[in-house]
Amino acid sequence: MTTMTNAPFERVHIIGAGLLGASIGLALREHNVAVTLADASPSAVALATDYGAGVALEPGSPQPDLVVVAVPPDVAMEVTRSALDQFPESTVIDVTSVKAGIYEGLRTAGADIARFVGTHPMAGRERGGAVSARSDLFTARPWVICEGEAGAIQLVESFVRSLGATPIVMSALEHDRAVALMSHTPQLLSSVMAARLSDASPTALSLAGGGVRVVTRIAASDPALWIQIVQANAEAITEHLNGVKADVDRLLEALGDLSATGSRSAIADLLHAGNDGVSQLPGKHGVSTAFASLIVVIDDTPGQLARLLTQLGDWGVNLEDLRLEHSPGANVGFADLTVKKDVVAEVETKLIDGGWRIAGEVK
Amino acid sequence: MTTMTNAPFERVHIIGAGLLGASIGLALREHNVAVTLADASPSAVALATDYGAGVALEPGSPQPDLVVVAVPPDVAMEVTRSALDQFPESTVIDVTSVKAGIYEGLRTAGADIARFVGTHPMAGRERGGAVSARSDLFTARPWVICEGEAGAIQLVESFVRSLGATPIVMSALEHDRAVALMSHTPQLLSSVMAARLSDASPTALSLAGGGVRVVTRIAASDPALWIQIVQANAEAITEHLNGVKADVDRLLEALGDLSATGSRSAIADLLHAGNDGVSQLPGKHGVSTAFASLIVVIDDTPGQLARLLTQLGDWGVNLEDLRLEHSPGANVGFADLTVKKDVVAEVETKLIDGGWRIAGEVK
Repeated sequence: MTTMTNAPFERVHIIGAGLLGASIGLALREHNVAVTLADASPSAVALATDYGAGVALEPGSPQPDLVVVAVPPDVAMEVTRSALDQFPESTVIDVTSVKAGIYEGLRTAGADIARFVGTHPMAGRERGGAVSARSDLFTARPWVICEGEAGAIQLVESFVRSLGATPIVMSALEHDRAVALMSHTPQLLSSVMAARLSDASPTALSLAGGGVRVVTRIAASDPALWIQIVQANAEAITEHLNGVKADVDRLLEALGDLSATGSRSAIADLLHAGNDGVSQLPGKHGVSTAFASLIVVIDDTPGQLARLLTQLGDWGVNLEDLRLEHSPGANVGFADLTVKKDVVAEVETKLIDGGWRIAGEVK
Repeated sequence: MTTMTNAPFERVHIIGAGLLGASIGLALREHNVAVTLADASPSAVALATDYGAGVALEPGSPQPDLVVVAVPPDVAMEVTRSALDQFPESTVIDVTSVKAGIYEGLRTAGADIARFVGTHPMAGRERGGAVSARSDLFTARPWVICEGEAGAIQLVESFVRSLGATPIVMSALEHDRAVALMSHTPQLLSSVMAARLSDASPTALSLAGGGVRVVTRIAASDPALWIQIVQANAEAITEHLNGVKADVDRLLEALGDLSATGSRSAIADLLHAGNDGVSQLPGKHGVSTAFASLIVVIDDTPGQLARLLTQLGDWGVNLEDLRLEHSPGANVGFADLTVKKDVVAEVETKLIDGGWRIAGEVK
């Protein structure tokens, strides 16, 4: 298990008492750090205080060692600038999803940027308010730390570790390009695909399988937050969307004249590039030749899945991934188990011997 | 549970001994139907015969009542046409993913189309060969049945039900448009997104979260099969890809000049349309306001997840969805549980009382 280290700051002031701000407050309170809170909404501060995330900042409070700006992207630069003014002795960090614009805005405004470090915790969803706050929201999650004065960066790294997160240091530009590719472009493409379902016929929708469901899953995200993120990172997103546009154009050209030289290979090339790309993803969910899936039929009742997983646990099988799929119109479901390829045959035999029905295998 | 009904045919001949053909054979053998097999590859027939999916067709065998063509999309029309010639008394069906082109090809070739019904089982993946065949591959899965002579359609409906599947009758054109939207366009967009990851930096890849993983998951599909499907349904796919292109163009225009009138609303409109679209999806996985997610921290060891699900089962909690997420660099994982919104508070309290750590909640 990841363990928290001691927090390097005694007094921390958090501006913005939403999910991230309140979660940081809760985690710091577990280290007995003195946490003060502020928010444009007094009721948000009251709620976060009730939750034990800190206390409201009073006039005459001692200077905090660290100020955390945890406000929506479209006001983050302005709030950070005024925090650097208001707390002239404090290190100031922000936690918004896009970073270069904040640095640029602060420089343009002549802010005391030597005390600022931009950061971005890759944790949960940035919505839900203080009511969804958790002291362990950051446990084992990457937390990006961008450029700043060396001493300040070291302190911020210790701070991030004290919340259980894993610090990853990169430049603001590198961060923004990375999230444009890894987060913002997938979000927009998921929305583009889901938007096409708006006027789908009930008949078409009845054929919805696992593919369209996973591709459109994140299209359910909060538009109010995402419009801010997309605007703040427009340039880096544009680069990737231009690549998407070029691929879609090439597909349309190929589909428009399948007999033309190069049409078939253009489609095949894209499908192969997709294979390559998805194999680059690290960790368990990266589709890899090392894993195989078994699809097990289960009764769609509470106890069945637990019984299946208990048996797998008894056999010492470690699941790499697990998805449930529901069968419209039937009292059965499917559990899609991903296991290491070198144990899949053994697991399958045990499942069949144990009376489970296997509905398919994907190698 | 769905139960199989009696098969309406006494003798069935299956052409193509891959995953689908061999699975149909296995299921029919459980009803004591006489099954004969053929395949361009003699070893595929031998393998399927070993598996008990039927026996090789011999010269002089009695005419089958039904012929099932279960070959790859790019040869399906030709094989179906010659099956109608070879078995002049039999009803003939195919099981490929795209339908209108086969009807058109058969009409053009002057085939005896009154005995033909095009079908498409929405079951598993169309790869893996006979070695992956299962008699219950079609259990509770939709099986599309397209146009044909009324009596033939009724027989095919009974046949499909006898394999445990749920027949859905629609025209070939309606089917092809539906799968272009619900299956083929998501596949291509997933590949387009994944293709952008091919040259991503290790730093960028280290930030991969749940979003990019789900959007690109199906990009790992078999290019050899998909190029055939995409070509066979080029027209219907083109319609949806043109819609995608228009949305991407609109996004690029808005991102290129964020201060222009209508730029912000163009982005917001797309995000809202995505919300609407994903809410149209039926069944458990449809993102709906009726459900909420709880993210539970689990030790990344075999027994933990089973223990969690056993407790949930003991409490009578029915999971609507379940995903596992791995935390790079840490010995913990996250289980993302989707439950009905009206029980989420109760489940959360029980989990916390039971010593589980909640890492987040998504409403």
